[in-house]
Amino acid sequence: MPDCVLLLSGGLDSATCLAIARAEGFAVHALTVRYGQRHAREVDQARVVASALGAASHRVVEVDLRSIGGSALTTDAEVPKDRADDGSIPVTYVPARNTVFLSLALGLAEVVGATDLFLGVNAVDYSGYPDCRPEFVEQFQRLAALATRAGVQGARYTVHAPLLALSKAQIIRRGVELGVDYGLTHSCYDPAPDGRACGRCDSCRLRRQGFADAGVADPTRYAGG
Amino acid sequence: MPDCVLLLSGGLDSATCLAIARAEGFAVHALTVRYGQRHAREVDQARVVASALGAASHRVVEVDLRSIGGSALTTDAEVPKDRADDGSIPVTYVPARNTVFLSLALGLAEVVGATDLFLGVNAVDYSGYPDCRPEFVEQFQRLAALATRAGVQGARYTVHAPLLALSKAQIIRRGVELGVDYGLTHSCYDPAPDGRACGRCDSCRLRRQGFADAGVADPTRYAGG
Repeated sequence: MPDCVLLLSGGLDSATCLAIARAEGFAVHALTVRYGQRHAREVDQARVVASALGAASHRVVEVDLRSIGGSALTTDAEVPKDRADDGSIPVTYVPARNTVFLSLALGLAEVVGATDLFLGVNAVDYSGYPDCRPEFVEQFQRLAALATRAGVQGARYTVHAPLLALSKAQIIRRGVELGVDYGLTHSCYDPAPDGRACGRCDSCRLRRQGFADAGVADPTRYAGG
Repeated sequence: MPDCVLLLSGGLDSATCLAIARAEGFAVHALTVRYGQRHAREVDQARVVASALGAASHRVVEVDLRSIGGSALTTDAEVPKDRADDGSIPVTYVPARNTVFLSLALGLAEVVGATDLFLGVNAVDYSGYPDCRPEFVEQFQRLAALATRAGVQGARYTVHAPLLALSKAQIIRRGVELGVDYGLTHSCYDPAPDGRACGRCDSCRLRRQGFADAGVADPTRYAGG
């Protein structure tokens, strides 16, 4: 089985991505980043998901993005609720987050001897973040070959983003086919102290609508719901 | 004054780079990464250097690269001494380090509104690390425009690497002209408990030879020297 490194947030998309990588025959080294996100609860769920879906290994790397700030997820700024999608990049965008995450994945790939990276980004039902677009993913692939020891020795990297062109409903249907238990995943940016999802942030809204569109029962525990 | 973000390690090269960025008229936001390096002493020196050379701001970001490993600098593996340069990439190479560092710098650039990044890499008197080469620097520049909110809005990034083509002796001469006090900088990968440099790791050897070639007195305190 070839090795790969997969970025696992504990959310719906990356869990589905893990199931897909396993179905494609990869031994999956999962990497979760605790970056000072206000919804650090997702890190606990990432551990549960990695184990449930048969990751070959799972690491949690600490990166203090709070010392950089610039996002509602890494400061005490308010997370928008019931936001209308006006095509703008919302305040939950974390500057350069996926570049930082893929860089860490690339470092781990060198250590485990992998040249395949998996990233659960999605450019259909998403929040308009620049680093979730196909051109970003392709460009990182080119950088990887120049940045590494393996690259110098001739290796070429593939950044797999199997969810890129899928709607949230399609992602959920694919995950259900592959046996993903979405009750283990956490998406909410601003959960209640007891862990229940707010149901109203961008992440909850996309998730909720995805289950409705897929005709799949939503296992999420919503606050006040 | 335009703002820039500069990666500052506390070593000789990045201190010189800071002096150059200041001389070019930039307000410098310095970023130091504490990544679990065995020579964490350089982080203390980075604070001193940032202050002495007039950085507009200085942040230390924590990233636990020990949980990824793969380098003599982030594990308990031995740092090679008196190593012959055989053209290979040595065990002190930290997988994807400059990609991680530039990604963090890019995040900070978005927060302070900068599109200029400074990196003190050098491809002449260096240890053969892949992510110190000009093609890596150019590729990161292209990635930056695709990865960020500013890039989506049309910004183009410049990754300045003013030391790229200089020898260590040339770097030191340039720094001396600009008033850099190299006694404040720390280069050794494997310092003694009292902070004195070993004098024999790659980093010490390049530094020592650089001072000798430049005809500048070496202010470094070497163990047993």
